[in-house]
Amino acid sequence: MTATRTETDSFGPLDVPADKYWGAQTQRSIQNFPIGWEKQPIAIVRGLGVIKKACAQANMASGKLDQTLGNAIVEAAGEVIEGKFDDNFPLVVWQTGSGTQSNMNANEVIANRAIEILGGVIGSKDPVHPNDHCNMGQSSNDTFPTAMHIATAMSARDVLLPGLEKLLAGLDAKAEEFKDIIKIGRTHTQDATPLTLGQEFSGYAHQIRQGIARVNATLPGIYELAQGGTAVGTGLNTAHGWGETVAANMAEITGLPFVTAPNKFEALAAHDAMVFMSGALATVAGSCYKIANDIRFLGSGPRSGLGELILPENEPGSSIMPGKVNPTQAEALTQVAAHVMGNDAAIKFAGSQGHFELNVYNPMMAYNLLQSIQLLGDAADSFTERMLNGIKANEPRIDKLMKESLMLVTALAPTIGYDNATKVAKTAHKNGTTLKEEAIALGLVDAETFDRVVRPEDMIGPK
Amino acid sequence: MTATRTETDSFGPLDVPADKYWGAQTQRSIQNFPIGWEKQPIAIVRGLGVIKKACAQANMASGKLDQTLGNAIVEAAGEVIEGKFDDNFPLVVWQTGSGTQSNMNANEVIANRAIEILGGVIGSKDPVHPNDHCNMGQSSNDTFPTAMHIATAMSARDVLLPGLEKLLAGLDAKAEEFKDIIKIGRTHTQDATPLTLGQEFSGYAHQIRQGIARVNATLPGIYELAQGGTAVGTGLNTAHGWGETVAANMAEITGLPFVTAPNKFEALAAHDAMVFMSGALATVAGSCYKIANDIRFLGSGPRSGLGELILPENEPGSSIMPGKVNPTQAEALTQVAAHVMGNDAAIKFAGSQGHFELNVYNPMMAYNLLQSIQLLGDAADSFTERMLNGIKANEPRIDKLMKESLMLVTALAPTIGYDNATKVAKTAHKNGTTLKEEAIALGLVDAETFDRVVRPEDMIGPK
Amino acid sequence: MTATRTETDSFGPLDVPADKYWGAQTQRSIQNFPIGWEKQPIAIVRGLGVIKKACAQANMASGKLDQTLGNAIVEAAGEVIEGKFDDNFPLVVWQTGSGTQSNMNANEVIANRAIEILGGVIGSKDPVHPNDHCNMGQSSNDTFPTAMHIATAMSARDVLLPGLEKLLAGLDAKAEEFKDIIKIGRTHTQDATPLTLGQEFSGYAHQIRQGIARVNATLPGIYELAQGGTAVGTGLNTAHGWGETVAANMAEITGLPFVTAPNKFEALAAHDAMVFMSGALATVAGSCYKIANDIRFLGSGPRSGLGELILPENEPGSSIMPGKVNPTQAEALTQVAAHVMGNDAAIKFAGSQGHFELNVYNPMMAYNLLQSIQLLGDAADSFTERMLNGIKANEPRIDKLMKESLMLVTALAPTIGYDNATKVAKTAHKNGTTLKEEAIALGLVDAETFDRVVRPEDMIGPK
Amino acid sequence: MTATRTETDSFGPLDVPADKYWGAQTQRSIQNFPIGWEKQPIAIVRGLGVIKKACAQANMASGKLDQTLGNAIVEAAGEVIEGKFDDNFPLVVWQTGSGTQSNMNANEVIANRAIEILGGVIGSKDPVHPNDHCNMGQSSNDTFPTAMHIATAMSARDVLLPGLEKLLAGLDAKAEEFKDIIKIGRTHTQDATPLTLGQEFSGYAHQIRQGIARVNATLPGIYELAQGGTAVGTGLNTAHGWGETVAANMAEITGLPFVTAPNKFEALAAHDAMVFMSGALATVAGSCYKIANDIRFLGSGPRSGLGELILPENEPGSSIMPGKVNPTQAEALTQVAAHVMGNDAAIKFAGSQGHFELNVYNPMMAYNLLQSIQLLGDAADSFTERMLNGIKANEPRIDKLMKESLMLVTALAPTIGYDNATKVAKTAHKNGTTLKEEAIALGLVDAETFDRVVRPEDMIGPK
Repeated sequence: MTATRTETDSFGPLDVPADKYWGAQTQRSIQNFPIGWEKQPIAIVRGLGVIKKACAQANMASGKLDQTLGNAIVEAAGEVIEGKFDDNFPLVVWQTGSGTQSNMNANEVIANRAIEILGGVIGSKDPVHPNDHCNMGQSSNDTFPTAMHIATAMSARDVLLPGLEKLLAGLDAKAEEFKDIIKIGRTHTQDATPLTLGQEFSGYAHQIRQGIARVNATLPGIYELAQGGTAVGTGLNTAHGWGETVAANMAEITGLPFVTAPNKFEALAAHDAMVFMSGALATVAGSCYKIANDIRFLGSGPRSGLGELILPENEPGSSIMPGKVNPTQAEALTQVAAHVMGNDAAIKFAGSQGHFELNVYNPMMAYNLLQSIQLLGDAADSFTERMLNGIKANEPRIDKLMKESLMLVTALAPTIGYDNATKVAKTAHKNGTTLKEEAIALGLVDAETFDRVVRPEDMIGPK
Repeated sequence: MTATRTETDSFGPLDVPADKYWGAQTQRSIQNFPIGWEKQPIAIVRGLGVIKKACAQANMASGKLDQTLGNAIVEAAGEVIEGKFDDNFPLVVWQTGSGTQSNMNANEVIANRAIEILGGVIGSKDPVHPNDHCNMGQSSNDTFPTAMHIATAMSARDVLLPGLEKLLAGLDAKAEEFKDIIKIGRTHTQDATPLTLGQEFSGYAHQIRQGIARVNATLPGIYELAQGGTAVGTGLNTAHGWGETVAANMAEITGLPFVTAPNKFEALAAHDAMVFMSGALATVAGSCYKIANDIRFLGSGPRSGLGELILPENEPGSSIMPGKVNPTQAEALTQVAAHVMGNDAAIKFAGSQGHFELNVYNPMMAYNLLQSIQLLGDAADSFTERMLNGIKANEPRIDKLMKESLMLVTALAPTIGYDNATKVAKTAHKNGTTLKEEAIALGLVDAETFDRVVRPEDMIGPK
Repeated sequence: MTATRTETDSFGPLDVPADKYWGAQTQRSIQNFPIGWEKQPIAIVRGLGVIKKACAQANMASGKLDQTLGNAIVEAAGEVIEGKFDDNFPLVVWQTGSGTQSNMNANEVIANRAIEILGGVIGSKDPVHPNDHCNMGQSSNDTFPTAMHIATAMSARDVLLPGLEKLLAGLDAKAEEFKDIIKIGRTHTQDATPLTLGQEFSGYAHQIRQGIARVNATLPGIYELAQGGTAVGTGLNTAHGWGETVAANMAEITGLPFVTAPNKFEALAAHDAMVFMSGALATVAGSCYKIANDIRFLGSGPRSGLGELILPENEPGSSIMPGKVNPTQAEALTQVAAHVMGNDAAIKFAGSQGHFELNVYNPMMAYNLLQSIQLLGDAADSFTERMLNGIKANEPRIDKLMKESLMLVTALAPTIGYDNATKVAKTAHKNGTTLKEEAIALGLVDAETFDRVVRPEDMIGPK
Repeated sequence: MTATRTETDSFGPLDVPADKYWGAQTQRSIQNFPIGWEKQPIAIVRGLGVIKKACAQANMASGKLDQTLGNAIVEAAGEVIEGKFDDNFPLVVWQTGSGTQSNMNANEVIANRAIEILGGVIGSKDPVHPNDHCNMGQSSNDTFPTAMHIATAMSARDVLLPGLEKLLAGLDAKAEEFKDIIKIGRTHTQDATPLTLGQEFSGYAHQIRQGIARVNATLPGIYELAQGGTAVGTGLNTAHGWGETVAANMAEITGLPFVTAPNKFEALAAHDAMVFMSGALATVAGSCYKIANDIRFLGSGPRSGLGELILPENEPGSSIMPGKVNPTQAEALTQVAAHVMGNDAAIKFAGSQGHFELNVYNPMMAYNLLQSIQLLGDAADSFTERMLNGIKANEPRIDKLMKESLMLVTALAPTIGYDNATKVAKTAHKNGTTLKEEAIALGLVDAETFDRVVRPEDMIGPK
């Protein structure tokens, strides 16, 4: 039996666990939404902490909020930001679409903690009231979208971009390392003219470089905060300049360039900035998919695949099959990429479904976007560290495949003519021989000429 | 500092928490996949328990597995099924795409627990070996897909279908309760001819009734199990009849009509049965979306909306606005529905991406499908209990809107002619008056005739 | 300058091309919706023809419609069904969401053609009126959804299912043809234990066999027709039994088992049967994707790929590169598959967006579903005829890869022990030698024993 | 019987229609890909014309191409750009994934037209050869992606952005026109505090303003052209600077700021710039969806809906129901928006599926993106012209709803206290009376005070 205390909201009293700081509205939400296993992401909790701190600071500065109470709120909110109360946010994603109950969860936890700091009785709402003081100047309708943007921006900075930067650095390093290894190209999955392995990796690197730029191009929209719109976007019950002030405070607290949204009606009724960012994430996911998929095919084998890359071995693949390295990091990354595309579809759907002054898909959109951010960042990091950085080129294999290629006949055409070159290639294909063997056998060139003319190293760039 | 013990796999020794039953391969996966916050779903853990029990039974029956060891495995696996070891499955979804590491997690936990039962030393692999005994006759490649199907079928039976049946019962009850309430119809969001509120709800009920039938139509594919295909679908290292035997055991354990898959190559390389089921779930999600969205619009107000339904109040909506009931359960359900559509996109993508003998999107597909099942089941249940069942018709409002409707003029046309009826309606629209007022004012009918002819109750069905 | 005549609707007169049969409402729609380049699909036009014929028959039978007029309508509608008026349906998909204007297009064309048959003046609405006679007992709200279902069912029968059956037959034939060719298996894209090429193709065949069954499982919902619901589902202005009668007539005309929908409110306000069918199509698309993708990889080369399959050459691949066969049919099929998944997302979205008594995404949903049907049917047919049926096994290559595989060491373990087998495989991998060479060199077996024990043909099934 | 001539490719001779300019490879593609009804978009045809002209110019400048031949090619390509040969591009979308056959279609048509200009015999390949001259320095692998980008950029400039700018201007105008009309706000679909109708429209305008900025943010990636990468990205067979030169020529021809892509390997193997742009289009689609959906609900009625907006009437809605204006332009736009989301899913899927040096989903990705561009541009234009610009505010209705709202009680709280204000609102809700009536009846304020304090015009912004 857990010890409880009684908390009250306008619907009446409710028992809450004695060792938790939340109040009646949080407890009511637990009971009313027994749906799924997905909790409100911690990044949202931290974002709510940032808001409560920033607003209390502004309310003290304007004289609306008593300094003693305000300082206690600032301290309590700071602890939420630091993660001391992560286990005091029990609500699920699948609650009211405005996120009201999670906003109240923050108000209740911070109020009770501030009461505690000030020596009051938890649950008494005295001297700190969750609505009157913690939510002062705020509405869930502007607060939760603000928390969504703060959580997104912080997670992008702390998880996504570092992961992608690491992946980019790894790809750039391999492009450099492999810059002199000439290999067969493949188009339509079929043999084509040669390129260097470094060139191939440079293409991957460019995808991620652009991907980072794309994510960055979407962040300015995320830095615009709804706070100040209050209930329907008008800013009812706020003073002129409130939005600017609290955005500046949030920028100060987080070190991110937050500003107040230029149109609060849009900021409450739509989440287009998040939808656009999700599109950038899905684009990056597609890039990661292509890269990881290529790498597992280039590393396929050890005997019956393409075998151009040697992949690091991180765990037992098969107990009986030495040399079988399952590309598990590529599998984790491609699973993540496919999942991010699903999240993108969900976000796009929800983003279109606002009605009038409010979009009520807040927790669901935030959950999906933050999950995409976390997964892409984590998986890019892990893939880089445990697979990409350890990749080695199987140079003998690469060289053998390249030299056997019939596509090198392209280089011979200027010397012996197009028709003769075609004949050489067709004959070699039919007989399973080399171009050189057949070119000599057909009396079209001598060995020396062949070696002088057919030079893959001259085929990997413009002249 | 946590106490640890040493476990070993072919890559070497690793420290694992002393109070956990997992071994080195599980621990290695924890270290190698620090990606995201999504754990392997519990339903998968239970499904693995079912498999390990069923295979041990079959291996004992065929004499391959010592009875003492086998019975200990059966007991340990039974405890996994009962949920006693849920906290011993720490692996994330974003691991190897075959789910190998979660299969090994089950093997390791069950082996160590069986060792414990038999009085041995945990971690010694003696007398019960995770591979040799717990995984006997199995490969991850057939085991994990089998666990996916078992988890899906059990969750469908235990969560999804009960939730949908409850929703259907609730809708049927409202269709009956509201069968005599005549209301204005709306097409293109615009006023149309009347119907009963019960008829409207009967359409919702029919959507869910069909939805349940659709889910049921996809389950036979889920009941087909991959077990017996081993590494690539050939059944290498199994005896003839093994697949049939273990499927029968699993059916016995779970009470579900599992059978062995007719083609194991397909069962490993594709998960089309899950893809098809996801399509059924997305269809149901679309139905739920439409229903919940209609209900929140029909219940909009209290003054400035459609106001035909009175929605139950479950929590404080707005502290200042009595009568404002936010349709939070509808919001939870529509958020779930939108999310399920995203999951469907992810599942479809992944389902198409198998290569050769194996699809390596197992954990990700299972996570998405099981989440869709759980969320739809839970949200349907909660929506029914906390919103639908408490809905009341606002009969005066419904009657007022219906009677004011210009669309009733349809009934007048046979009596006064089409052109005159049009004139009545146009005039009433222009003047903001009633049809009756204008019909009389224009001298086209008397009051008695109007009342006799314009009878909404005659407009709600064929004659 | 095109000759025109004047047609009139309630908004006034409009000029229409003199050589066309459509009237003012069609012309007005042309002018009001200059959106995109996608015309209403021909299958919808034919479906509208079926409806107009069936309803005229029923209206004559009940005595509501004059026999002379009715017979002319039946004749004109029959010509629409035969395709004689395809170029008289100029409207785009992106019109009113109820499809009203396309329903009127059918009414106007059939009325004018019936007038012509009866010797009247086109455009006069005399003696046949587009609304009063051609649309008798119908509303766009039940007619267009009915046309959607008829078009879907006919296209499924005439295009989709024949294409899939042909693909299935082709895969079954290859499974039989290749049943004795033993090849290396691949899991995680890496070498694995052997199977036969026939087994591999049997997995593909099973995917399509199940896919056909899934499509068929969704058709009963498509056979249910909305006709008889009229404006809001009540059947206002129809007689009892009308829905049953016209559905029976439509079944007779088309040879398909159409019945009247059991709940007309659902049939107008939702299109869940189409959503569910789309899910089945997307599942089939995923199957086709996997198959075509595998085949292009198995046929990759000619020198630097897997090279197990020899693909037919249908067109010049590269002017210089003999033997480079681009798998263009696989590319067409995978492009179609990816497109069908996009269509599925669009259909699911739209299916959830009905409001109250009507879903107004009719033309868009029909366009997407019919396109998916056409593309999958056509592409499956073309892929089978121009690629699959011409595939040859490259037996020497398959045999070489299989025999070189280190995975065959699995068979040696029972004889020389697991540890020794591992040593053999590791050494062979390191040295690039064969298992046999190393097993003998290590003194573990003699050549004869090796050949007796390591038999791939014993590894392709249970014992 | 159509007259034909014989054309030849390396596979042999083929009959082509005598009145067409295409050659054997085009004809062969017609025969090999009888899939679907979707032709290669005209924008792609024009883009190919731009490329052929630009390359011929560059080849003449470098002296590789004879001036006489070159000038004829430039003239012929110019005619393709002008649209004179639109009917000479018969190929479907569902062809080889590289778009090779459409590139050859352009080469063949331009070669034959250039031959004609020079007085030669069509089909003779003399003096202008489709490969040697028209395709000089080009490969399909760089040419088709270049055509995709050119087509995208031109369509964005010519169709999409003008449509969105028109929509934005329309919304801005309404925001201004309606700036003094105070109305009830709605959150959770329920009554909320007031705002002006102009504020509501300003939110819509801001969505589109940001949407245009988002589209523009994706265009720089589209302006980067693959031309110069030739077969695998290396630029084999080109001279240094070729890519820069032809991009400059294409910029000159089109008036768009095209540049050569900084990494050609990425430009051939991925189409991330198009994927990212598709995300921006889907975001805009979501914005359009929200706006159009709000407007049809705000314009719902005439009697039983919200009725705040009076929508223009463009066509007969219902023959019997005057005042019933079906919001058909909103329906077209929302159908387009849902379709664009499906296209986005297809594009994202395909974008991730490149293999090695080439992505072979070119025609399918281009078709989807160009369709999204066309549909959004057209539908935004039509919606603005035929619906938005004609919208009128139903001021009496708006005023009535706003004044009846219980939410105005918020303004009374400072004067009579929160608890009394709540009592006023609850009583009015229960009795169906006004706030003023109950406030006076309860003796809490007099009429004058009420009117002075409860002023909606003071509730629509910060103080």
